[in-house]
Amino acid sequence: MQSIRVDTPSAKYDVIAGSGLIPTLAPRIQRVTGRLPRRVFVLTAPAIWALWSNTFLQSFAEPPTTLFLAPGEKHKTMPSVERLLRQMVAAGGDRGSLLIAFGGGIVGDVGGFVAAIFMRGIRYVQVPTTFLAQVDSSVGGKTGVNLPEGKNLVGSFHHPLAVFADIDVLGTLPDRELRAGLMESVKAGIIRDRALVRFMEEQADEVLGRDQKALEKVIVASIRMKAGVVNRDERENGLRMILNLGHTVGHAIEQATRYKALLHGEAVGWGMIAALFLALRRGTITRGQAERLESLIHLYGPLPPLKLRAPKLVAATGADKKNVSGVRRFVLPIGIGDAGVVEDVTPSELESAVTYMLTHAREQRTK
Amino acid sequence: MQSIRVDTPSAKYDVIAGSGLIPTLAPRIQRVTGRLPRRVFVLTAPAIWALWSNTFLQSFAEPPTTLFLAPGEKHKTMPSVERLLRQMVAAGGDRGSLLIAFGGGIVGDVGGFVAAIFMRGIRYVQVPTTFLAQVDSSVGGKTGVNLPEGKNLVGSFHHPLAVFADIDVLGTLPDRELRAGLMESVKAGIIRDRALVRFMEEQADEVLGRDQKALEKVIVASIRMKAGVVNRDERENGLRMILNLGHTVGHAIEQATRYKALLHGEAVGWGMIAALFLALRRGTITRGQAERLESLIHLYGPLPPLKLRAPKLVAATGADKKNVSGVRRFVLPIGIGDAGVVEDVTPSELESAVTYMLTHAREQRTK
Repeated sequence: MQSIRVDTPSAKYDVIAGSGLIPTLAPRIQRVTGRLPRRVFVLTAPAIWALWSNTFLQSFAEPPTTLFLAPGEKHKTMPSVERLLRQMVAAGGDRGSLLIAFGGGIVGDVGGFVAAIFMRGIRYVQVPTTFLAQVDSSVGGKTGVNLPEGKNLVGSFHHPLAVFADIDVLGTLPDRELRAGLMESVKAGIIRDRALVRFMEEQADEVLGRDQKALEKVIVASIRMKAGVVNRDERENGLRMILNLGHTVGHAIEQATRYKALLHGEAVGWGMIAALFLALRRGTITRGQAERLESLIHLYGPLPPLKLRAPKLVAATGADKKNVSGVRRFVLPIGIGDAGVVEDVTPSELESAVTYMLTHAREQRTK
Repeated sequence: MQSIRVDTPSAKYDVIAGSGLIPTLAPRIQRVTGRLPRRVFVLTAPAIWALWSNTFLQSFAEPPTTLFLAPGEKHKTMPSVERLLRQMVAAGGDRGSLLIAFGGGIVGDVGGFVAAIFMRGIRYVQVPTTFLAQVDSSVGGKTGVNLPEGKNLVGSFHHPLAVFADIDVLGTLPDRELRAGLMESVKAGIIRDRALVRFMEEQADEVLGRDQKALEKVIVASIRMKAGVVNRDERENGLRMILNLGHTVGHAIEQATRYKALLHGEAVGWGMIAALFLALRRGTITRGQAERLESLIHLYGPLPPLKLRAPKLVAATGADKKNVSGVRRFVLPIGIGDAGVVEDVTPSELESAVTYMLTHAREQRTK
């Protein structure tokens, strides 16, 4: 078990990663909050709760009030948020209440947002149950939901009191979800951690085989990278932007496929391949580095094929939330273990990169 | 013109109160923001815009994108918020955009909340157009909307960049709204400012006759009181609670009458009468003080009659947002110019106070 400290101007808390956390949650939370409040809520997904409720409830003297969110991006909406808020009022929730978000990234984002705005903000704890949520979405205080116009267009910065990433839950995670989640670890390595890149190259069999030690190592390194970046730039004014490597094109792919065909990590995987192409063109990485990193991405694939057209994807990147006043921001790797943001990527440059990526994405189909 | 500083751990900004602010808004905002962003939104109400759009637009080189909110608490909802957020995305809003909330308290609360959660928070400016919004809701960073279960149950703390309270708009304010708004100034005097109480007693004719100097004096004193309290307790953990004098019973009245029969200030006026009764019973004010303050409240009336039953009102106070873990919090005046929070008001004590208030509220009908 390891503890990683998040320390920003607005919040300080620990991310605990390891085995056996879920059956011992209540005392762990109490170590942070003192006595548990009168009303504790747990927001979860039906499938998670079916598998884990007995283990989860083990350490609670009084069972928390359960709130459910149906799976899928299509439920990550404002109407879902209002329904949950109303259920909390009806169940006697007040400003002292605590919410536990127990599920994947969507449960974490919605749960954090509900906690951020219920009676102008209550405390919450993240208990992420997917690899992706453990290494990425549960750390950093970003919460929110989608609008019909795009993903995560509404939200708040609201940090949890603590994050408990129990690797035991990963045993039941579908293989495709694990691989998609590992794309964020690949990203973590590329932008900030050469050693993680090497480890993921050398120990791919162990990691994909869910060897406890290997998984914990990748999770802890990924969280440590993200916490380090968030500690230095809580509100995404500068450095934090590099966490978006692969995300500009990745979001465009998700939008063009209506968030149905690909998992988030898979879209980011393709997006990183486009970013590597751009970085190579601009000389921020060498051909050898580009090939090595592209192989690493495919090692944790396969990424699903894409049937999209380049101009459509390029147009979709214009709506990215990272853009301010019409400037298109793009994260490019610098060697292995560093990255930077550029603002002068032209549409034609982007189109070449997307075309390169789509060519590979079509070859992928014939494998 | 006067400037009052709000200075909290999370934000520092000025509240400017005086004449001639609306026709000179753009340069005033630029003094705070630097160059205006590419996309500026103004959220307003149709009736306000019909009267003031020409004056408002005078100083803008490019007219802001107008967003409308229909009047009334029934539009202060999550679905309204989602509609506005979607309109902002459609109009090309981004993280650098600025929103101006130009209207009464509802426009300010909704506008502030929309700004708080659009792309995880954008900057905004308050330009309150009612007396109540100028002295109360536009200062302090509280934003939010209602749920069907109750008022302001959802929201954020999100401070504006600046507040411009132009007293010229008060000329077109209906008399009843002015009188209701003045209840918050009466409250300000009771809890923190003896001199304001005396001024409002002695200059009632001037204030109600909308004499510019008298109005500005009351507005500035009220804002100064609120800013002083917010500066010392931004998140309502302690002192800020005293701003809720009259609000526990006031909210219960609003809820019992479904926010239709009374203006907020009127409900607070009745709520203060109940609080004075309780304070007298507990000896935190003398009979002479209670009578003096009750007269002051009626001087700025008339408060509308109430046809409610005491037990129903007492029950409704149980749902108050200020309550934590079942403890009913109540603000009581201490003499004139001070107040405190008590947590041990029994239901029967509260019922006597509410009964006293309702007796007066019935007499009121026969006047």
